[in-house]
Amino acid sequence: MKRVTAQSMRDAFGVESASHMRYLIFSGKAAAEQFPNVARLFRALAASGKARATRHYEQASRLLGEYCVNFSTPFFLERTMDNITKAWEACKDAAEEFYPACTAVARSQNELHAAKEFEWFAQVEKNHSDMLRTVLGFIEHAAEEPKIGDLRVCDICGLVIEGKPPEDCPVCEAKSSFLISVE
Amino acid sequence: MKRVTAQSMRDAFGVESASHMRYLIFSGKAAAEQFPNVARLFRALAASGKARATRHYEQASRLLGEYCVNFSTPFFLERTMDNITKAWEACKDAAEEFYPACTAVARSQNELHAAKEFEWFAQVEKNHSDMLRTVLGFIEHAAEEPKIGDLRVCDICGLVIEGKPPEDCPVCEAKSSFLISVE
Repeated sequence: MKRVTAQSMRDAFGVESASHMRYLIFSGKAAAEQFPNVARLFRALAASGKARATRHYEQASRLLGEYCVNFSTPFFLERTMDNITKAWEACKDAAEEFYPACTAVARSQNELHAAKEFEWFAQVEKNHSDMLRTVLGFIEHAAEEPKIGDLRVCDICGLVIEGKPPEDCPVCEAKSSFLISVE
Repeated sequence: MKRVTAQSMRDAFGVESASHMRYLIFSGKAAAEQFPNVARLFRALAASGKARATRHYEQASRLLGEYCVNFSTPFFLERTMDNITKAWEACKDAAEEFYPACTAVARSQNELHAAKEFEWFAQVEKNHSDMLRTVLGFIEHAAEEPKIGDLRVCDICGLVIEGKPPEDCPVCEAKSSFLISVE
């Protein structure tokens, strides 16, 4: 793998490992504030970060070594309503800036496998920002815990799916056995 | 909190989030290779990383904002025996270089609370590197899965404790209710 694409992958591993951890922390906070559905949604987002971080790590580790990882990430921990807003902003940034830039780098270096995965992840983040926007809208109007259906996470691309699961993942086409239920 | 101590804390959040993720990946690999005890030990180390990352995040988030995170970390995924060796090296580095340097920075800035926590974490990493060294020695001689007793993780400082739990955590003195069993 070309050097700059590999570095994008390492930095993306850093971003997703940090997001995974932040969502676990947000989930604990939501549970403590009596928002069990939001806590479950944050657990799903944490599992999504884990799926992507794992793919980045596995691929980056083909070039064995100790490397620097550099990324920008929000440090933020407030009430659950504000944490949802921050999560929405972070997903929007990943969908509109971070993963499209990674995709452009990989494509310019003819790293087509990496480019395809980065593109999936931009789509996944767009879906998540839409989902969080809906939850925010509900809470703003109803001032109560939103209803959120069954959640599954695609173990390949990290897409969070609410409600009845599709046959295959609509982003990466993984079989339904890869769609893992979130309790 | 002083600027440079706060940046150490953000970078340490990055290090621990990445370690947490690497140990989850190593645990999956160990389980697939029929080393259930080693898989459980890696789950304990992942929980330890989560405990520390959570403390770093909570404290760093008092200075709200989007910040760069920079750290050096191994990208490595081989057979379980080699993964244990790599984990041992990483814990040794954290015990001997990373956390002592963070402690020195915090102490020089009179950030005594941060310095105390960084010191705990250096001790914890020393304990973990000793534990991993013992496991490695066992596997090198017996070429079979090591026996590993019940494991608990201190939810405050992240110390992994094997066997009968003490009354309080021997590193941070947290009460026994903070010592969480690892399945």
